[in-house]
Amino acid sequence: MKKFVNDPKNYVPEMLEGLALANPDTLRYVPEFNLIMRADAPRDDKISIVQGSGSGHEPAHVMSVGKGMLDAACPGDVFSAPPTDYVLETIKRVASPRGVLLLVNNYTGDRMAFEMAQEFSEAEGTDVRTLFIDDDVSVQDSTYTVGRRGVAGNFFVMKAVGAAAERGAGLDEAVRIGEKVNSVTRTMGMALTACTPPAKGSPLFDLPDDEVEMGVGIHGEPGRRREELQDADAIVRELVDAVADDLPFTSGDRVALMVNGLGGTPISELYLVYGIARHLLDDRGIEVGRNYVGEYCTSLDMAGASITLSRLDDEIAELLADPAETAMRVF
Amino acid sequence: MKKFVNDPKNYVPEMLEGLALANPDTLRYVPEFNLIMRADAPRDDKISIVQGSGSGHEPAHVMSVGKGMLDAACPGDVFSAPPTDYVLETIKRVASPRGVLLLVNNYTGDRMAFEMAQEFSEAEGTDVRTLFIDDDVSVQDSTYTVGRRGVAGNFFVMKAVGAAAERGAGLDEAVRIGEKVNSVTRTMGMALTACTPPAKGSPLFDLPDDEVEMGVGIHGEPGRRREELQDADAIVRELVDAVADDLPFTSGDRVALMVNGLGGTPISELYLVYGIARHLLDDRGIEVGRNYVGEYCTSLDMAGASITLSRLDDEIAELLADPAETAMRVF
Repeated sequence: MKKFVNDPKNYVPEMLEGLALANPDTLRYVPEFNLIMRADAPRDDKISIVQGSGSGHEPAHVMSVGKGMLDAACPGDVFSAPPTDYVLETIKRVASPRGVLLLVNNYTGDRMAFEMAQEFSEAEGTDVRTLFIDDDVSVQDSTYTVGRRGVAGNFFVMKAVGAAAERGAGLDEAVRIGEKVNSVTRTMGMALTACTPPAKGSPLFDLPDDEVEMGVGIHGEPGRRREELQDADAIVRELVDAVADDLPFTSGDRVALMVNGLGGTPISELYLVYGIARHLLDDRGIEVGRNYVGEYCTSLDMAGASITLSRLDDEIAELLADPAETAMRVF
Repeated sequence: MKKFVNDPKNYVPEMLEGLALANPDTLRYVPEFNLIMRADAPRDDKISIVQGSGSGHEPAHVMSVGKGMLDAACPGDVFSAPPTDYVLETIKRVASPRGVLLLVNNYTGDRMAFEMAQEFSEAEGTDVRTLFIDDDVSVQDSTYTVGRRGVAGNFFVMKAVGAAAERGAGLDEAVRIGEKVNSVTRTMGMALTACTPPAKGSPLFDLPDDEVEMGVGIHGEPGRRREELQDADAIVRELVDAVADDLPFTSGDRVALMVNGLGGTPISELYLVYGIARHLLDDRGIEVGRNYVGEYCTSLDMAGASITLSRLDDEIAELLADPAETAMRVF
């Protein structure tokens, strides 16, 4: 296993400690609960927003904590839902009098942990609401999922409700916006290679040198099918077709287009993919009003990418354009 | 070769086209010269700053064009210096009456192309100065280099002179600042895996599963030595020791610390590396006043990382803190 890792058991805590050390003014790290939170949370004048999931998808979600995004993230171990008591403790620590909104990608383990934590929190008097994200068009049910999976499109929900919260939205308003964004957001990804979880020490699945997994899940779950490795044009066309035909996105639509790297694919390739996707959307009469090219929701060191479309209306476009300040600054 | 690529000959132009399509308001792409420039360059009131190098190091340098950073970048093909006429044309198109500053990483091919282009430009009446960057402590001379190589530390020079230029610095002042930053900046990298250039289609060098290359160059050049794969603590200690002992950085120094991924290493591992490096610097009494964790100067899909230290004084710290706006936004 060729990774920067010490004892694999400490992979997540060591990553979180590094993250906190790099952001001493803005983030707080609570090791007992894998908890990363804004230094200024909770705020009395703003709902708090919490997301948790397995680790291994960074920058989702621990590096998405900050102004205009999440108030806290409570990751589990690699590809494992956080324990209920981590979620519960996270809610407690960021509970605002205006309430707490939980963002949960649709996986059975995550749903269970967050639903139980919500119940306990409500019993203690905290106003809590939950939004489920299920943007992945690849498959209906999956290894860890009843219904569709939540993948990189989660970012659009997080950004929109994060911006709305900074603008003063209450829980009802944030839920309305988040549900709207999720309802117009679609994603499909594909793997060129498998990923290697530190605790396993070897690739999570076998993928021959001449094959790819179309519709792969972010935990390496099987997608729609294995197929022969093709050139970028063919791969991107298959992804764009699957995503655009699903909602469907049609001529005249204005969208945000995200090309998301899965961890092992360099940014040069992601921009090449972006160019191809842009031309395909032009051909369909779909206007790209906003774009994101980079890593948003990864699968450890997997080579591959996903494509997300999110239909913009004026409200969503404005919220996406609001500033956000997280650990993921560049220059 | 598991990559998003069509005809490998078009890898760079397709990447650049995608980059330009994603940034229509701020960047201009001139395909005939592989040229990416700011839409508002040249400006009469500001020196222009140009960097070129081989491609395959993105976001260096085409994704570092923008306010507070470069005015233009003219990349060559993957790991190849840009042709002199590309550099010459780039200088022409962004020539400001206040002059043009060329930033050149110290490789023989890049030096030749830029030195010739500078001569031609000066003959045509443009005021041109060049800064060479040579921050890599790994080896003295190398496959493509007389003297030390220029690697990720280049970012600090680019950011400081970019900020100074926005503040109104003339050529002399920018050269003074850039030389100062280069003189206090040191880097060493290491490869966990080789990288695969699209035109080659196979790994650039052989690196057994249980070995790493300490001090690797960003084109896969040999470093100090091959050694057995060790845990993250041991690898990071070797990098930090090599870098800190070189200048040397000593107790009481305030530094910027960069953990730079080489393309195939996920951000989770980079933060883990950051935490280790931070503790080692604490032990040495070196204060980290500013940090950068992410990809700045990559080697295609190589797994690995480099560590850079740059000694801060008040002037450099202020310039590094100035805003910059490039394609590499996140949220």
